[in-house]
Amino acid sequence: MPDQLHIYNSLTRKKELFEPLNPPHVGLYVCGPTVYSDVHLGNVRSFLSFDIVYRYLCHLGYKVRYVRNITDVGHLVDDADEGEDKIAKKARLEALEPMEIVQKYTNGFHKIMRLMNIIDPSIEPQATGHIIDQIEMVKRIIDNGFAYEVNGSVYFDVEKYSQQYHYGELSGRVIEDMQESGRDLDSQDEKRNKIDFAIWKNADASHIMRWPSPWGDGFPGWHLECSVMSTKYLGKTFDIHGGGMDLKFPHHECEIAQSVAADGTAPVKYWMHGGMLNFEGKKMSKSLGNSILPEEMINGDSPLLDKPYSPMTIRFLMLQTHYASEIDFSNKALQDAEKALRRLTNALKTVEKLPFVEGKIDEEKETTIKALCHECSEHMNDDFNTAKTIAALFGLATQINTFKDAGGKVTGISNDTFELLKSTYATFILEVLGLKEESTGDQSVLNDVMSILIDIRNTARAQKDWATSDTIRNRLSEANIIINDNKDGQTTFEIG
Amino acid sequence: MPDQLHIYNSLTRKKELFEPLNPPHVGLYVCGPTVYSDVHLGNVRSFLSFDIVYRYLCHLGYKVRYVRNITDVGHLVDDADEGEDKIAKKARLEALEPMEIVQKYTNGFHKIMRLMNIIDPSIEPQATGHIIDQIEMVKRIIDNGFAYEVNGSVYFDVEKYSQQYHYGELSGRVIEDMQESGRDLDSQDEKRNKIDFAIWKNADASHIMRWPSPWGDGFPGWHLECSVMSTKYLGKTFDIHGGGMDLKFPHHECEIAQSVAADGTAPVKYWMHGGMLNFEGKKMSKSLGNSILPEEMINGDSPLLDKPYSPMTIRFLMLQTHYASEIDFSNKALQDAEKALRRLTNALKTVEKLPFVEGKIDEEKETTIKALCHECSEHMNDDFNTAKTIAALFGLATQINTFKDAGGKVTGISNDTFELLKSTYATFILEVLGLKEESTGDQSVLNDVMSILIDIRNTARAQKDWATSDTIRNRLSEANIIINDNKDGQTTFEIG
Repeated sequence: MPDQLHIYNSLTRKKELFEPLNPPHVGLYVCGPTVYSDVHLGNVRSFLSFDIVYRYLCHLGYKVRYVRNITDVGHLVDDADEGEDKIAKKARLEALEPMEIVQKYTNGFHKIMRLMNIIDPSIEPQATGHIIDQIEMVKRIIDNGFAYEVNGSVYFDVEKYSQQYHYGELSGRVIEDMQESGRDLDSQDEKRNKIDFAIWKNADASHIMRWPSPWGDGFPGWHLECSVMSTKYLGKTFDIHGGGMDLKFPHHECEIAQSVAADGTAPVKYWMHGGMLNFEGKKMSKSLGNSILPEEMINGDSPLLDKPYSPMTIRFLMLQTHYASEIDFSNKALQDAEKALRRLTNALKTVEKLPFVEGKIDEEKETTIKALCHECSEHMNDDFNTAKTIAALFGLATQINTFKDAGGKVTGISNDTFELLKSTYATFILEVLGLKEESTGDQSVLNDVMSILIDIRNTARAQKDWATSDTIRNRLSEANIIINDNKDGQTTFEIG
Repeated sequence: MPDQLHIYNSLTRKKELFEPLNPPHVGLYVCGPTVYSDVHLGNVRSFLSFDIVYRYLCHLGYKVRYVRNITDVGHLVDDADEGEDKIAKKARLEALEPMEIVQKYTNGFHKIMRLMNIIDPSIEPQATGHIIDQIEMVKRIIDNGFAYEVNGSVYFDVEKYSQQYHYGELSGRVIEDMQESGRDLDSQDEKRNKIDFAIWKNADASHIMRWPSPWGDGFPGWHLECSVMSTKYLGKTFDIHGGGMDLKFPHHECEIAQSVAADGTAPVKYWMHGGMLNFEGKKMSKSLGNSILPEEMINGDSPLLDKPYSPMTIRFLMLQTHYASEIDFSNKALQDAEKALRRLTNALKTVEKLPFVEGKIDEEKETTIKALCHECSEHMNDDFNTAKTIAALFGLATQINTFKDAGGKVTGISNDTFELLKSTYATFILEVLGLKEESTGDQSVLNDVMSILIDIRNTARAQKDWATSDTIRNRLSEANIIINDNKDGQTTFEIG
């Protein structure tokens, strides 16, 4: 197992040693949400995967500049450069200014990220905030001969580019196949070739989101913004670019072509792609009727769910699978994750409290614990394998519980090993995996405890044990809790 | 007292009937934060004042588009167009990309807004997201003859403007006085007149935040962004523009001049300005050493504070003063506010629970309650007088407590009046004033209750009353609470 970080690079299709371009700095770019609707669970998984990448790189001591964009213009409903802009369409449906849509869904997105304990990126640039930079990039691509203008729109000339560079190197697609299978759409006739893609679109009169440009009023093509914003904040070539598997083609393939065509440089050293998320064996989709929003899962507000699941349960279930593999959500998987997570976090509370007692070293135990601690890092070094890291943490939890059950103290290992155990266990759960402690539902616990106390008081009253019942009432009153004996025979309480 | 909303208009220096330009729509623009440092308490007060304006307009049934910007470029350290850009300077100090600074302090700002229960605006545009629109406005101002270019910078020609329009109409300043009192700064010599102000600044080689423009690489003047973003999202003339008193001059005065010079239209019908905030009689400032950040006040993390104060206590204290008046924060004022707010919210819980009993109408009581309910609206209609609305709510709280003390039921008033009382009281506290219920510190309450229960159990054990002690232990165990009898004789508990 590797003692240095290795990353599976989608571009080379190999696991490679991670060697940053400019250590200790690392540039990380992740494609963020298109803010025209609620973020779905698959998006959350993708952002979580790169949250782990970010956390682990920081854990290794790298100084990471993490950029995750907000797509607030240019993402068309139909990926083939046709149809309406997704945000403008939603605005028309909801009768709002497009930027109100952007604000609403950006806020919603941020809320889910907070609930899921996903760390904010260092910079979260918006596409509309970089129109000038996008126009400048289009100009460079035209100047270099890789794009042409028709009726106020500018298209990337894929065939021309292919004569010199390899279009398809990331996705593995072959340009001749793409030309045959591409759909024939009406206004495709502006394009020289149907695999060409728009980098600037002319805005017709009805289009609200528009900016002046050398080619008339228009708006940028969707693929362009990521090329512009990643290189603006991370340099013409940077370390890691991430996104969901569904973005590999055409989005990321186009990003590479744009950067190469504009600046002659491949933009990214390591490309990373996250796997998809299914629910009970099927792809989640609105048309299949099995789509569950993250917030619905947290509130239990879906007929598909047996009960609500906490954000950390959802997070933990996602991390139990390697980021690049497909994951299958189900009620059973969620409930198992809930229990497993509790086992992990209970052992964390235990290890923080157990006293250490010097004693004869049990070599086997000593070796096992040290090995499990090292495994946590080794699995993360192996392309961020959170699934195996969690397995190692369960191994440690078993060791902790054995100490607890055998006399409630840690003994038989060296103090150094005990310190290693404590710090590894806490660091990997809390910092690297970001599994924060969740509120244990204080209100319901309080209700339970109060009902015990009220029963004791009522029993005392029934037995005319006024001393006990008065003591309870007085001490509750000191604690600012008032007991009310209601007419229906029920006793309730209120605070304050 | 007015039964229709009246607003004190800083422009006309009169209280005026509020008549929106395009009812039921209302356009509201508020100057947001410059995100180069933590938001301070005075800013929070300003944003709270306009949160109340927004809430009350919505309460009246208006459809409000509320725009509050983020200044992420162009605000110079020295207001007289000299010195470094505030964000670029901070970036240099912290050795970060300027947009990392923007992200960090935008996130911090949003956090405080959430804590303070200040509603998000409909649109929160960033200055860097509107560079093209700003360049277009500069062009229009130049085309109309009210600005001139020198060395790649563009200045607004105040004297020229004054020949045709009234520069100073908002602030009441006289142009001749300004010319005499203006400071003489080195590179002021680019300006024809020292009261001229930059609308576009040439970026020297060291400047990171820069964009291409017809006048070379540069960045927009600070005053320009608000003119551009307010009119872009609300129209060339819109209803209400708000901001702190300190922004009246030069910022808002310049906004008017820019809009008039570019488009020939006064941009705003009602100008509103919020008052300043002092601490124990002195202006809060870092140099005086009496500056307290909102988060420090909430955590109690300042030598100037006796204890922490909850966000709603701070909110309530601010609302006890009319938005345009100066306010003085102190430990005493905060502690008084804490108590007063508790009185108000306790009465809210009471009124929701009290049963109504039909009975002979007490005309005086009936009249008093109805009058107090109407007063809540009337005071808000009088230029958003939250201070007097709160006084009326205290009047209602007294009525509620009288019902509670006199038999724990509501009687002597009509059912209609009771419903009016309940809905008015809840609506004004929760929706209009936005005073949400705060967690009552469940953990500490739980600790108190558990200590009572543990004492009862220990007493039972001492008396060999095993039935009671076992019942307590078993029922706690059902509630997922484990009791530990520690070696030091203490009994502790843990959940889960």
